[in-house]
Amino acid sequence: MKFEPIKHYYRTQLRWTTERKGILRCEDKPDIPVACAPEFGGHPGIWSPEDLFVGAVEVCTMTTFLWLAAMKKITIRSYESEARGTAQMSEGALRFTSIHIKVRIGILDEGDRPEIEKILQEISKWCLISKSIDSEVRIEPEIFVAVIREGNNTIL
Amino acid sequence: MKFEPIKHYYRTQLRWTTERKGILRCEDKPDIPVACAPEFGGHPGIWSPEDLFVGAVEVCTMTTFLWLAAMKKITIRSYESEARGTAQMSEGALRFTSIHIKVRIGILDEGDRPEIEKILQEISKWCLISKSIDSEVRIEPEIFVAVIREGNNTIL
Repeated sequence: MKFEPIKHYYRTQLRWTTERKGILRCEDKPDIPVACAPEFGGHPGIWSPEDLFVGAVEVCTMTTFLWLAAMKKITIRSYESEARGTAQMSEGALRFTSIHIKVRIGILDEGDRPEIEKILQEISKWCLISKSIDSEVRIEPEIFVAVIREGNNTIL
Repeated sequence: MKFEPIKHYYRTQLRWTTERKGILRCEDKPDIPVACAPEFGGHPGIWSPEDLFVGAVEVCTMTTFLWLAAMKKITIRSYESEARGTAQMSEGALRFTSIHIKVRIGILDEGDRPEIEKILQEISKWCLISKSIDSEVRIEPEIFVAVIREGNNTIL
């Protein structure tokens, strides 16, 4: 008996429109207008492949975090991040050499901090996109206890 | 005298909203609602990191093609593509092992076909995103001469 390995397929479609622009589609999801980045002769104000790449790493880091936190039954109040990808000449070609992600997580219980730090240290081992790229992915976490004001639920 | 290598930076921001969902931002570009993919406990109908990753490769392949075609002064009438990324277990982790892109290009002049085929054969060497990932990127081209009907400009 032969077992087939688990495979997942992801499909997108693209159509060039004009100049260095196009429309990116994925099933029934909202279309994304895309373009070549301005520094390569493209257009500002439109998602470039480089933006999408950095975004893919950043989003996968969050979804992986949410999955691991849920497995460990940790409740979080907020999660925000900023990612910066650096593309530079390396071995004769321009490529992403690093992705630096600053993550800011609001927790309810100070006691959860060590477990969250541990998750973040190991997250790139579990993140499908980080595992698929050559760039170094560096996570810089800031964890704070979210104080909920009585009456209006605001996170300080 | 020391020369600093050329570097380009790409920045995105992410905010978790609820469940396994968030909002992805990039400068003044339209926000992209994002979510964990359904097969990992997420949500359908929303761009997942895996979709963004495959899209980044597909868009970069197009923008690289448009750049190379412009350099060689080749006029094209249309460009469409379909990309399929395969994620599977490899060396103990789930990762993208291949991206297969079917590209359909309408040209004006049959004489441009060899040059376009050559560009497509070499495109992954120039595509910044393909150079940044571990997956094999395979391009399957279909090139046709776009016939313009007199009077209404329709491409057959």
